[in-house]
Amino acid sequence: MHILLINPNSTASMTSQVLESAVRVAYPTTRITAVNPVDTPVSIEGGADEAMAVPAMLSEIRKGQAQGVDAYVIACFDDPGLHAAREIARGPVIGICQAAIQVAMTISRRFTVITTLPRSIPIIEDLVSAYGANHHCRNVRAINLPVLGLDEDPVEAERLLVMEIGKAKQEDRAEAIVLGCAGMSLLCDRLSAATGIPVIDGVTAAVKVAEALVGAGYKTSKVNGYDFPRVKSPSPVSSMEQVGNLA
Amino acid sequence: MHILLINPNSTASMTSQVLESAVRVAYPTTRITAVNPVDTPVSIEGGADEAMAVPAMLSEIRKGQAQGVDAYVIACFDDPGLHAAREIARGPVIGICQAAIQVAMTISRRFTVITTLPRSIPIIEDLVSAYGANHHCRNVRAINLPVLGLDEDPVEAERLLVMEIGKAKQEDRAEAIVLGCAGMSLLCDRLSAATGIPVIDGVTAAVKVAEALVGAGYKTSKVNGYDFPRVKSPSPVSSMEQVGNLA
Amino acid sequence: MHILLINPNSTASMTSQVLESAVRVAYPTTRITAVNPVDTPVSIEGGADEAMAVPAMLSEIRKGQAQGVDAYVIACFDDPGLHAAREIARGPVIGICQAAIQVAMTISRRFTVITTLPRSIPIIEDLVSAYGANHHCRNVRAINLPVLGLDEDPVEAERLLVMEIGKAKQEDRAEAIVLGCAGMSLLCDRLSAATGIPVIDGVTAAVKVAEALVGAGYKTSKVNGYDFPRVKSPSPVSSMEQVGNLA
Amino acid sequence: MHILLINPNSTASMTSQVLESAVRVAYPTTRITAVNPVDTPVSIEGGADEAMAVPAMLSEIRKGQAQGVDAYVIACFDDPGLHAAREIARGPVIGICQAAIQVAMTISRRFTVITTLPRSIPIIEDLVSAYGANHHCRNVRAINLPVLGLDEDPVEAERLLVMEIGKAKQEDRAEAIVLGCAGMSLLCDRLSAATGIPVIDGVTAAVKVAEALVGAGYKTSKVNGYDFPRVKSPSPVSSMEQVGNLA
Amino acid sequence: MHILLINPNSTASMTSQVLESAVRVAYPTTRITAVNPVDTPVSIEGGADEAMAVPAMLSEIRKGQAQGVDAYVIACFDDPGLHAAREIARGPVIGICQAAIQVAMTISRRFTVITTLPRSIPIIEDLVSAYGANHHCRNVRAINLPVLGLDEDPVEAERLLVMEIGKAKQEDRAEAIVLGCAGMSLLCDRLSAATGIPVIDGVTAAVKVAEALVGAGYKTSKVNGYDFPRVKSPSPVSSMEQVGNLA
Amino acid sequence: MHILLINPNSTASMTSQVLESAVRVAYPTTRITAVNPVDTPVSIEGGADEAMAVPAMLSEIRKGQAQGVDAYVIACFDDPGLHAAREIARGPVIGICQAAIQVAMTISRRFTVITTLPRSIPIIEDLVSAYGANHHCRNVRAINLPVLGLDEDPVEAERLLVMEIGKAKQEDRAEAIVLGCAGMSLLCDRLSAATGIPVIDGVTAAVKVAEALVGAGYKTSKVNGYDFPRVKSPSPVSSMEQVGNLA
Repeated sequence: MHILLINPNSTASMTSQVLESAVRVAYPTTRITAVNPVDTPVSIEGGADEAMAVPAMLSEIRKGQAQGVDAYVIACFDDPGLHAAREIARGPVIGICQAAIQVAMTISRRFTVITTLPRSIPIIEDLVSAYGANHHCRNVRAINLPVLGLDEDPVEAERLLVMEIGKAKQEDRAEAIVLGCAGMSLLCDRLSAATGIPVIDGVTAAVKVAEALVGAGYKTSKVNGYDFPRVKSPSPVSSMEQVGNLA
Repeated sequence: MHILLINPNSTASMTSQVLESAVRVAYPTTRITAVNPVDTPVSIEGGADEAMAVPAMLSEIRKGQAQGVDAYVIACFDDPGLHAAREIARGPVIGICQAAIQVAMTISRRFTVITTLPRSIPIIEDLVSAYGANHHCRNVRAINLPVLGLDEDPVEAERLLVMEIGKAKQEDRAEAIVLGCAGMSLLCDRLSAATGIPVIDGVTAAVKVAEALVGAGYKTSKVNGYDFPRVKSPSPVSSMEQVGNLA
Repeated sequence: MHILLINPNSTASMTSQVLESAVRVAYPTTRITAVNPVDTPVSIEGGADEAMAVPAMLSEIRKGQAQGVDAYVIACFDDPGLHAAREIARGPVIGICQAAIQVAMTISRRFTVITTLPRSIPIIEDLVSAYGANHHCRNVRAINLPVLGLDEDPVEAERLLVMEIGKAKQEDRAEAIVLGCAGMSLLCDRLSAATGIPVIDGVTAAVKVAEALVGAGYKTSKVNGYDFPRVKSPSPVSSMEQVGNLA
Repeated sequence: MHILLINPNSTASMTSQVLESAVRVAYPTTRITAVNPVDTPVSIEGGADEAMAVPAMLSEIRKGQAQGVDAYVIACFDDPGLHAAREIARGPVIGICQAAIQVAMTISRRFTVITTLPRSIPIIEDLVSAYGANHHCRNVRAINLPVLGLDEDPVEAERLLVMEIGKAKQEDRAEAIVLGCAGMSLLCDRLSAATGIPVIDGVTAAVKVAEALVGAGYKTSKVNGYDFPRVKSPSPVSSMEQVGNLA
Repeated sequence: MHILLINPNSTASMTSQVLESAVRVAYPTTRITAVNPVDTPVSIEGGADEAMAVPAMLSEIRKGQAQGVDAYVIACFDDPGLHAAREIARGPVIGICQAAIQVAMTISRRFTVITTLPRSIPIIEDLVSAYGANHHCRNVRAINLPVLGLDEDPVEAERLLVMEIGKAKQEDRAEAIVLGCAGMSLLCDRLSAATGIPVIDGVTAAVKVAEALVGAGYKTSKVNGYDFPRVKSPSPVSSMEQVGNLA
Repeated sequence: MHILLINPNSTASMTSQVLESAVRVAYPTTRITAVNPVDTPVSIEGGADEAMAVPAMLSEIRKGQAQGVDAYVIACFDDPGLHAAREIARGPVIGICQAAIQVAMTISRRFTVITTLPRSIPIIEDLVSAYGANHHCRNVRAINLPVLGLDEDPVEAERLLVMEIGKAKQEDRAEAIVLGCAGMSLLCDRLSAATGIPVIDGVTAAVKVAEALVGAGYKTSKVNGYDFPRVKSPSPVSSMEQVGNLA
């Protein structure tokens, strides 16, 4: 089984980290490849960053299709381009946010997500809602540290996360914590040990879910919504700017 | 890894079937044991049947705990006693309905559930809602065949299921089908082949999800909602009937 | 009219209390009998306790059916086995949580529930959601006292409840309070007097709703979802344990 | 106990009918008075009719307050002015739509509402949603007969209702029927007998709920949302029309 | 284009204010007339005030219809009688609450509403829900000042609003503020300047939306829900009071 | 006022059409420019097409920012990249789906959307849900014609649309129709005339809403969710592919 782990941003050190997280839990018979595009934002912090990263990410999936990849994991917690990716792929495509939420809904009754920057809170809330977890998700919190700050000062990142997990237990009555950024992946076990509450990392969750789905023989449905994009003849016309009212 | 597969009803032939489904997809390193209680209903068709089956099912989980079982699968689509089971178990407890729905939400945008008797439709709708899939589930349908009818006349069962899947594609625009009864498990591949749409069997889904969760090291959260039942000294009083107003 | 009040736990002093609450509000022409099983948990604190209490509770309902009982009240705020009970009974079955919530939605626009232990909070939240009161319920709070603690130290219980009601008024803008445990029943009037806000006890509410439904001639619908359990021939097979993969 | 039944439209024959329905189920110790204003629409078919009827209805409640009425029933299925009425009254105010829905959610898992004109369908759907019954209400149907048509041709009305109930059973899998107009009240038992499904009339339901709430001692909460309207000194200014832009 | 701005309360100074707000943003080619009835409450603070104001407001719309008005704005944040008004009018009828919420959902991801009295909070929450903004609205807050207090002490009103907006930014993570009372209209720009967050006044929003809808040629749909009220012959019977049970 | 209308696909004839629709309703003082990128799909039919079009669309918005554009309209019914666009723009960004839905919720109580291909149905349903119109939207239908088919055979397109609108009136009880593709824009008036029901074209709606928002002085909130993308130093590392497990 071959799983392609795509970090949609262009920071190779994050790609290494998510690969490390993945390899630690994968079956030895699972082949895992991790890639990142070059020309995408160095981190995904908001919808514009997402949008600029998705075409290159889809391109990695197309390459994966040619190489017989069995399943794909999108290693960014915003699950950027998830629906688009599923249209292109035959095998299952797992978003780390959706996988982490599914795990959280299975091992706890109520959970809290903790992410990096406050600007990602509404994005993650919208995902929580789209994945049907509104009722189970107590809160989406942020430690107010940029994504790359996790890498630059991991000690401070860990301190902030431990503090925020404490608040989630106390104020939200959270029963499990979902880490809201792929870059937090390697801290997962230490955070759980420090706080006494299950801490779920989406990369880990997604890789295991990917193995599970491939192992069961599931493929992305090509009936309607996730059907392959229609092949269309290119438009003959070049770029255009027209002016209507000349106010 | 040891997974305990519990068929909560007392029909041993169904236990054999779900075990067969489980073994076909499990990793060779996964040990799978399947059990069923003796004194529970022969099939689970409604809330009263569920209620009568749960204590014996919990008792199997308690035995499993003593034997070091790593995860549990409840092999009945009503997910009877799921929350109770999670209170008792340390490892993850997977309901086949929840697992199937999580798969359906990952490989399709819209799905339909097909179950046996119409009386189970509101029960399953309530589960769909509890698992956050209201928006993704197009419909819950029934073929109007009792659970044991699947075993007694598998040819007719298959014919009815193929017909109902056709309606689900046509009338519901379903993109995937979830089989709403553990007893349909072995028909899964044939139905998918016959209808050209992914068909998801909960037993298969749950066993793979169980492997995934154990493989990732996840355990049921013991913070609050799924904490072990409190140990209480038995009440000294015997049974009681009191009459208030003697109208 | 004969109403059977079932305390699903085995603590007879609680049965007496709920009976007292019931008799105080019932019409003199209403005959009220209160029972509790012997072999169930001494208090219901979580899903496992519920599950262990339901079969004996259903058995009381079957007896009630033979005796011509007109309606049933389940005197535990988790409404354990409510759907199952309705399948078995001809007359209406009233859960004290559902009845209290219906009253709260009629005499106020927003209410808060106050229960005993925090572990019951997600259970009650799920009931609130199932009964369609998500929008009207501001909060579910807990005084962090076990169920039997209400009986052991009623003075402390009352102090904690008054304090929590104060917070509900202030922080939640609650307009009414629902007491989230049958064991709080007799405190209801004192709490309301002390805090100046309507306080709703589920036992009282359920008994009056039961009288209302019987008085209007309503019976549980036997069309589909609450139809009587199907009568099934017992399975010929004894208990079974099978091992699939021997990892 | 004194219950005031207010028919907000000005058709006295409907007032007589709802009184008859009420008296049939009320306890002999319950005093029931039924009134209707004179200057309101002859039937309530839409929001404008509602709006024109509410002030006179509130005026009846104010009179009732002076006379020591214990509870109020608004005998129109749109529950017009329900929140306003609760601000004015001390005792509980019961809307027949809300009461019927609460009964339907107690004796069945899924119900369908059948009303007179299609234009009332969205109004009733909005009430169903406001009362938290979206998940339990299968459908809102209309027989396409004006409200007064029920009175003018009761035979045809009954025929249409029997037919529509048949469709609700077949197409909606309804387990109970809620009659969506006070004017259908007296047909209730015949419809249930003819169709074999519980049929719920809101007037009956509301009167019994009113008795129950008064019997339990519940009053409308005067904390915040349903507090009495503030007393304000009249504005000194007379009517005004101002023109801003004179385009 | 002729827009009729109706202040449903009888305080002419508020009518002047809302007209001033309207004129400041309207196109010069838009004719704006502002009216208020005489015999309605001096301010709308709750459902009873609303109910007493609506018939006179509908009467203004009927006059507007005769004068060829193109669109109507109801200048009270409770959107009283909005559905009724749309039944009567041919042109679009804009509620200032709905318009403000639509703007807030367009220029921000999450907003908070700030109104006058706490008693209006549940009313506004219900509107937020009816307009589909539950997920986007972080909170509904109140400064605990009566509506006419805005006029009597505008300095204090502004101070309270600035303070509450600060809390909304901090505690709710609001990204925009909706002013929950027509009487706050003229403070809008100053509040936005003082707090650095977009502040949306419903009168402004509604007037511009009204221009937009008329400019696009949209009229209120007369298919079903908003169809004109049916013309009915008046009931021959005069007022009626009947007594059923003489308890 | 300068509004930039962006057709995200590369088909210039569609750009001309949407410009024509826009100019017909815009104020003469509004300057409208319409553009389309060259290297995007010829039509947007699904998530992958969307993803490939968004970066070039954002680039047009960046150009617009430099040119002092006041508001932006995204002329594709999937509202692709709407959140991303709002992060980049200072002025309001209007999606034609959101604008059309807001209009539909203002002039009717229930509406149906009619789009081109069935594969877009779940996409549009998700938008309807995100915009809070689940309760108001009766159905999303498709005429099963590709986007460019509208241009190639407008007579057939019109015939199919008239037929589907008929079904929406009859089967969905729709009170207004929303056209679910920018390419249907010019058919709007003819469809409304032919079917007697308001038909809403998103381009028209969005242009008028854009004028309204600019006219009122609203800008996109830069507090949190729609703040400008953070400026980040480019990552020093080039592309990377790593292999973890070599199964």
